[in-house]
Amino acid sequence: MKKIMDSKFRPVNPSPAALITSVDKDGKPNIIALAEVFNISISQPVIAGIGIRPATYSHSLIQESGEFVINLTTSELAEKVDACGSISGRAGHDKFKLFGLTQVAASFVKPPLIKECPVNLECKVVGINRIGDHDLILGEVVAVHADEDKLDANGGLDLEKLDLLVYMSGCYWSLGKKIGNHGFTNKKR
Amino acid sequence: MKKIMDSKFRPVNPSPAALITSVDKDGKPNIIALAEVFNISISQPVIAGIGIRPATYSHSLIQESGEFVINLTTSELAEKVDACGSISGRAGHDKFKLFGLTQVAASFVKPPLIKECPVNLECKVVGINRIGDHDLILGEVVAVHADEDKLDANGGLDLEKLDLLVYMSGCYWSLGKKIGNHGFTNKKR
Repeated sequence: MKKIMDSKFRPVNPSPAALITSVDKDGKPNIIALAEVFNISISQPVIAGIGIRPATYSHSLIQESGEFVINLTTSELAEKVDACGSISGRAGHDKFKLFGLTQVAASFVKPPLIKECPVNLECKVVGINRIGDHDLILGEVVAVHADEDKLDANGGLDLEKLDLLVYMSGCYWSLGKKIGNHGFTNKKR
Repeated sequence: MKKIMDSKFRPVNPSPAALITSVDKDGKPNIIALAEVFNISISQPVIAGIGIRPATYSHSLIQESGEFVINLTTSELAEKVDACGSISGRAGHDKFKLFGLTQVAASFVKPPLIKECPVNLECKVVGINRIGDHDLILGEVVAVHADEDKLDANGGLDLEKLDLLVYMSGCYWSLGKKIGNHGFTNKKR
């Protein structure tokens, strides 16, 4: 039996629990934890979107610099992700130092990659639009980095090894098992 | 050691494996499987986005009617989800009949809910924008339905019971275990 829920709050699940890096004018980096992180244009060109509150410090840094990095996280990093989401960088906190995260220089943008995150997307801003209580920031993905030991024999991501962290309805979750490849039922019919 | 990947294809993971319902002028419903489904504005108002190729039949139906329903799916439904993503409704196929899915009337929009999906979001289109190879369709979420037996004592979603289906880098995955609630590290510090 279907029931209409009282709350419509953040109804689409699951999503990534990602860490977004940005820099101020002096190159000092900040980190924000975001779950509103997604693919829109998937190949020509590759454009990702992030939904971010306009009042956040990271929003102002990304808007000013026109650059950000999406760092995908793992179950093992759940505590650090949650900690990054609990304080603002505006107060001068160095979240890298506070939470034991390591900067790695990106190739095409100023914000650093987070070494502990197995996948890192360098993004250049191509649009910012206010949508309700969030801004949608569109970023063209100019490079995707991955840990070499998380790649399969074909140079693709080995998802079993990645153990990506999931955000769902206010909770962090791990991933379970692979069920099948896209198109797996075609062989059955 | 970080390595720049050859392919930047669809780099953000994980995402939902959702089924989107729409209707033609005569009220005949169609279903498309989409992974580009996400929250943007999370409360005031609640606006979800879907990334959809302009050439799809569902795109034309949603554009003409201004309405769609996002149906979240489960691991158990993986075969039906994959099957819905394998053929176009333009050819006249009735995917509900073909794949054993059941229509339930929505409350505020014409496209039906899919009974077998435990969470269904009724959406009214508030914007369509071309972004690279996809259109971003924004939908204000006017009602969220859930199966009564998937709710917890407070009327919220019981995620353990939901077993939502995940899409990642061309594969379907199940969810694993809950790691912690948002803010769980605040108590530790």
